[in-house]
Amino acid sequence: MSGPDPAVAAVRSAVRRVLRALPRGTTVLAACSGGSDSLALAGALAFEAPRRGYRAGGVTVDHGLQDGSADRARTVAGIMAQLGLDPVLVRTVRVEGRGGPEAAARAARYTALDTAAAEHAPAAVLLGHTLDDQAETVLLGLARGSGARSLAGMPPRSGAYLRPFLELDRQTVRRACLRMDLSPWEDPHNEDPRFTRSRVRHEALPALEKTLGPGVARALARTAGMLRSDADTLDELAGDLRARAGGASGEGLSVAELEAAPSALRTRVLHRAALEAGCPPSDLNARHVRELDRLVTDWGGQSHIDLPGGLRGRRHGGRIRIGG
Amino acid sequence: MSGPDPAVAAVRSAVRRVLRALPRGTTVLAACSGGSDSLALAGALAFEAPRRGYRAGGVTVDHGLQDGSADRARTVAGIMAQLGLDPVLVRTVRVEGRGGPEAAARAARYTALDTAAAEHAPAAVLLGHTLDDQAETVLLGLARGSGARSLAGMPPRSGAYLRPFLELDRQTVRRACLRMDLSPWEDPHNEDPRFTRSRVRHEALPALEKTLGPGVARALARTAGMLRSDADTLDELAGDLRARAGGASGEGLSVAELEAAPSALRTRVLHRAALEAGCPPSDLNARHVRELDRLVTDWGGQSHIDLPGGLRGRRHGGRIRIGG
Repeated sequence: MSGPDPAVAAVRSAVRRVLRALPRGTTVLAACSGGSDSLALAGALAFEAPRRGYRAGGVTVDHGLQDGSADRARTVAGIMAQLGLDPVLVRTVRVEGRGGPEAAARAARYTALDTAAAEHAPAAVLLGHTLDDQAETVLLGLARGSGARSLAGMPPRSGAYLRPFLELDRQTVRRACLRMDLSPWEDPHNEDPRFTRSRVRHEALPALEKTLGPGVARALARTAGMLRSDADTLDELAGDLRARAGGASGEGLSVAELEAAPSALRTRVLHRAALEAGCPPSDLNARHVRELDRLVTDWGGQSHIDLPGGLRGRRHGGRIRIGG
Repeated sequence: MSGPDPAVAAVRSAVRRVLRALPRGTTVLAACSGGSDSLALAGALAFEAPRRGYRAGGVTVDHGLQDGSADRARTVAGIMAQLGLDPVLVRTVRVEGRGGPEAAARAARYTALDTAAAEHAPAAVLLGHTLDDQAETVLLGLARGSGARSLAGMPPRSGAYLRPFLELDRQTVRRACLRMDLSPWEDPHNEDPRFTRSRVRHEALPALEKTLGPGVARALARTAGMLRSDADTLDELAGDLRARAGGASGEGLSVAELEAAPSALRTRVLHRAALEAGCPPSDLNARHVRELDRLVTDWGGQSHIDLPGGLRGRRHGGRIRIGG
C-alpha cells in the first residue's frame, strides 16, 4: 500500500495544521481562482475538512476583466462542487477605483471574500499564497523602502484569512494540483509584463536566484516572518510609549518620556502622532519624522518644523505638539 | 565666480558633516584602495580637514593578491601625498583564513586599518562606501534570510570607522573623482563574476531596477537605515529582558518574565542564551529558537528539546535552562 504523492501529502498536511487551530463549527471556505495553487487548496480542504468535522466550502470571484470570465467562474464552481465543497459561492465584482488595476482588483476581491465570510459566520477563508508569492511580496515591499512593515509580507493569519501554503514552494503546490487530477486555469495577467508582480516573478526573482543561489525565495519568506514579528513587537511597545507620553494635539507628547525611549520606538510614536494630527500619509516621509525627532533629541530652541499638509511640529514646555 | 562642480561639492559636504562630529585633535585617515570612491574620499578629506583644524592622513592596504599590487599601493600613496595628506601609510597584509577569498581579504584589511588607527590614536578612519555599496550589502543580507540585523547593512559609524558617502550614489562620487582630476584604478575583482558582490552589482541590482524602477538602490539603503534602528532597539530591549529573566545556565531564565514579553524580544533572548550555552552559531537556526520558544508559550510538559552541539533546552520549576 502506498500513501499519497509527497506533494499531495504536503498540501494536505498544511491545510490540516491550520484546521487544527479553528474552533469546531467554523465554515472553512477555500478562495479559488481556478489557478493551480488555489485548486490544490480546494482539493486539500475537501479531503481534510470532513475527516476533522469541519464544513468546507469554496468561493470564486469573477472580476469581469476578461472575456469569458463568467463562464470560467462557473467552471471553477463546478470543480469545487465535484470536490464535495458546499457551499460553493460565485461572487461577481466591479473593479474600479484608485491605485492601478492590480490594487483595484485586489480590493474588490477582498470585499467580496469579506462578505462571503460574514454571510457564513463563523467562517475562515483559506488563501492559496505560496512561499514564492511571499518572496515576491517582500521584493515589492523592498522597492517601497518603507521599513520592516513593508518587508513583512503577508501574514499567515489575519482576521478570518488564513494562508496555509506560505511555507510551501509553488512547484510543490503545482505538482499537488496535477496529482489530484485537477485542471488549472492560469490567469494570463500572471504572465503579463505590464504588471509589476509578473515582472518580479519572471525577471527579478530569477535574476536574484542566478546571482545569490537557489535559496533566495525561501530566504525572503523567512525574512518576512522575522520582520513581521519585529514590527509587531515594535508597534506594541510604541503603543505603550504613546500611552505614557500623551497625545500630540492638546496636551502634547512628553519630551522626557520620548527622550528616555529607544529611537525605533520614538520615531514610531512621532510618525503615528503626525498621521493622527492630519499629515497626509502619502507625503509624510522618514525625513519629516527625523526632523520631528530632532525636536526631542537635538533641540536648538527653534520655534517649529514644517510638516506636510501645512502642519507644524513644535516643542514648548517639555511637550511636542503637532498642529496647524 | 563659480563654485565647485556639484558632485565635488556633494562629497566635500558629506565629509564636512562627519568631521563636525569628531573631537579636535583627532587624526582622520582616509582608507583608500585607489578606486574612484575612495580617491574622491581622500580628495574631499584633503580639502576639508585643514579648513576645520584636523590632521588628515591616508592609508592604503596592499593585499598582495595581484601582480603589481605593491607598485600600485605606492602609486596610491603618491597620490595621497600630493593631495597633502600626512601621514600616508602603506600596509601590506597576508590574506589567509576561512570564509572565502572576499571575507579573508576583508578581515586582513580591517585588521591593518585597526592597527593604523591605534598607532595614530585618537584617530578616525573614513571609508568610501556609497549608497550603491549599501544596497548591494542589503541584497547579500537578504540571501542569508537571517532577519533585521543582516538587512541593516553597514553602519554610518562604528567605533573609529565612519562612512560619509552612504547617502551618495556611486555615480556622483565617481564624477567627483574625475572632476578633482584624480586617476582611479579599478580593482578587476569588482568586475569578476566569480565574486558574489560583483554579480550583485552587475546582474542582480540592474535586474531589480529594470523590474521595480530606478529608485531601488536608494530604497534598499533607506531600508537598511530603518532596520538598523529597529535591530538596535530590539537588541537593547532584549538585553533588559535578559537581565530581568536571569541566565540560561545555573538558575535558568524565568518563564514568567519571558511569557510576559513580546515575541521578538523573547526569541532574541532565547537565541542569545542558546549561543552562550555553547550552541554552534552556524548550526543554530530559527527553527531551534522557535522550539525553545514553545517551551515558554506552548509547553505540553515535554522533558526537553534538542539543540545543536548536543545541548538540550529544558523547562522545570518555571525556568528555562539550556545545557548538556
